[in-house]
Amino acid sequence: MFVERKVKNFINIDPLQTGGKLTEDAKRMLLEWGDGYSICDFCQGNLHKIKTPPIADFVEELARFLGCDIARITHGAREGKFIVMHSLAKNNGIVIVDSNAHYSTYVSAERAKLDVIEVDNTGYPEYKVIEERFEDAIREGRKKGDVVLAVLTYPDGNYGNLPDVKSVVDICHDKNIPVLLNCAYSIGRMEVNADKIGVDFVVGSGHKSMASSGPVGVLGMSEDFAKIVLRRSERFNDKEVEFLGCSVRGVPLMTLIASFDHVRERVKVWNEEVKKARWFIREFESLGFKLLGERPHKHDLLHFKTEKLYEISKKVKKGGYFLYNELKKRRIHGIKPGRTKSIKLSTYFVPKDDLKKVIQAFEEILDKYS
Amino acid sequence: MFVERKVKNFINIDPLQTGGKLTEDAKRMLLEWGDGYSICDFCQGNLHKIKTPPIADFVEELARFLGCDIARITHGAREGKFIVMHSLAKNNGIVIVDSNAHYSTYVSAERAKLDVIEVDNTGYPEYKVIEERFEDAIREGRKKGDVVLAVLTYPDGNYGNLPDVKSVVDICHDKNIPVLLNCAYSIGRMEVNADKIGVDFVVGSGHKSMASSGPVGVLGMSEDFAKIVLRRSERFNDKEVEFLGCSVRGVPLMTLIASFDHVRERVKVWNEEVKKARWFIREFESLGFKLLGERPHKHDLLHFKTEKLYEISKKVKKGGYFLYNELKKRRIHGIKPGRTKSIKLSTYFVPKDDLKKVIQAFEEILDKYS
Repeated sequence: MFVERKVKNFINIDPLQTGGKLTEDAKRMLLEWGDGYSICDFCQGNLHKIKTPPIADFVEELARFLGCDIARITHGAREGKFIVMHSLAKNNGIVIVDSNAHYSTYVSAERAKLDVIEVDNTGYPEYKVIEERFEDAIREGRKKGDVVLAVLTYPDGNYGNLPDVKSVVDICHDKNIPVLLNCAYSIGRMEVNADKIGVDFVVGSGHKSMASSGPVGVLGMSEDFAKIVLRRSERFNDKEVEFLGCSVRGVPLMTLIASFDHVRERVKVWNEEVKKARWFIREFESLGFKLLGERPHKHDLLHFKTEKLYEISKKVKKGGYFLYNELKKRRIHGIKPGRTKSIKLSTYFVPKDDLKKVIQAFEEILDKYS
Repeated sequence: MFVERKVKNFINIDPLQTGGKLTEDAKRMLLEWGDGYSICDFCQGNLHKIKTPPIADFVEELARFLGCDIARITHGAREGKFIVMHSLAKNNGIVIVDSNAHYSTYVSAERAKLDVIEVDNTGYPEYKVIEERFEDAIREGRKKGDVVLAVLTYPDGNYGNLPDVKSVVDICHDKNIPVLLNCAYSIGRMEVNADKIGVDFVVGSGHKSMASSGPVGVLGMSEDFAKIVLRRSERFNDKEVEFLGCSVRGVPLMTLIASFDHVRERVKVWNEEVKKARWFIREFESLGFKLLGERPHKHDLLHFKTEKLYEISKKVKKGGYFLYNELKKRRIHGIKPGRTKSIKLSTYFVPKDDLKKVIQAFEEILDKYS
């Protein structure tokens, strides 16, 4: 059975997808290493030590790229968060989480049987995490239990806000709480160096931001925590318990390797991407929409309040789906079907000419229905 | 960066790999759905409910195929085992495990903080699980703690033994212990119907036995246990905690779907595969090797005691690697480099003509060094 992808040649502004588009090398890798367990041709018991294909070398280069002592491959950012949380979990354990966190941060904590205490954000319209509130949250947490970890989302997927990592790290480390930075939307787009910014753990996503097929992610950590997170099985001494021995036993890892050169290059032109995002914001706001999230904006994830579209949706037959249908006609993919009150999109690595078409499309749609 | 696979056009008898070779449709799927998160084009919050591509339909058909009330997609058999164990875990919890279990069964239990009690096998040369000993193991377990699950490996990867499931199920159910059947080497090769054989859980592996790219696996369960294993997040009511929301967010799932028609057909000709394996055993034993594992053999996973090769390895310069080098010259892949005392291979879906070449190769090698 073969299933065709419907939006294959569409202009794609789906926030989940702009950073996961494969490179040509990654596409070639798919066919070369597609067969099940082919990456284990010469495995001697540990995924991250495989020499042919060069996974061991890659994992070392990846650690350098992340500014971490040690790196590992995971099935994605969420699985990385769970691995860390599950390793650090205690009875009455608590995780401090910024309130812009992805749902999978909460669910990871729940799976690891940890309670969550949230750090507020500033609310409408910027929704900025209030970094200094991590202090209150830790205090509150310690009244209730044992605070084992703080998680900061960098940036969050809802507003594309990039909080000030250093101030959170200073607060947490002062109180001996390790910090995990969720970089699902940053590692592979912009430079993230765990050592420079002082965090203990970083997680990233291959399919979200590293031009890879899913499921694959990265986890970087400092030596100190490697002893806990990478603890070995008592019975099978070379197997890491949290990874059930080996994690990504397949081709998504090869696409990550294939695209790594490209990813290392593209993080250097991040400023250009931010500039383009800001240009898009100006153009889009001139249509009467309003950016949510921090200003000036520092990321390609954009969330707009789109009151005008919502007003139209109340009058038309298809309701909220009118927008989706109009965009589909114009071969534009990525706005959630049915949504009109506010919409989310990403401009990452979308050519400016395509973004102009997107802006023009919204202009036409507003004209048509006004 | 592109990495070529060295053994691409080799005769492949690697036990890990013979069941994971992609179908042509699966290869086409790789390119169609390779981009990160493309399978989530029209997701409304749950992987297993996605209609385009038809994942929801597939998951339902999969449940029927497995003879289970409910099925889910996992990253592989081991992740399925961990999901079940972690869901059923208690303080002082114990899992009963057959002593032919894969290492990842033990590591899954360890990760879920469960102790393991092993059920003996008959030892050399057949290593058959002694089914009735599950009774003693449960008794022993209950003295030490709370027995939450029994795991039976069907077949094990070491000898390819297929134990009598029914007798284990009868013992365990009589004592109210649920049974998980590890079918990493059976689901996708032979018929496994959880309902017919009475087990509560089955796990399977896409990359091992379902003609898929890794990492992807299947988990089937009965309605009763779905309440526990598929429990939802308190905060995010539509997210399943053990799956961190969604599991395989990428193209391996599409290869599983692509190959499913083929897999459903091929399980029907399993008898032919067993016949071929038995023919291979006869031919191989006639060279002076001896099959380990049960007789008559009921699976394509074959483990031979190869004393003659070991004797050669003691005399030659390259030691145990002489065999690997000789096979490599003949473009035969799958025997672990360095091993000569005993070797493991699989005849699954390897054409008989290729298997004849394998037998001839061993004959030549023995001749050359004798």
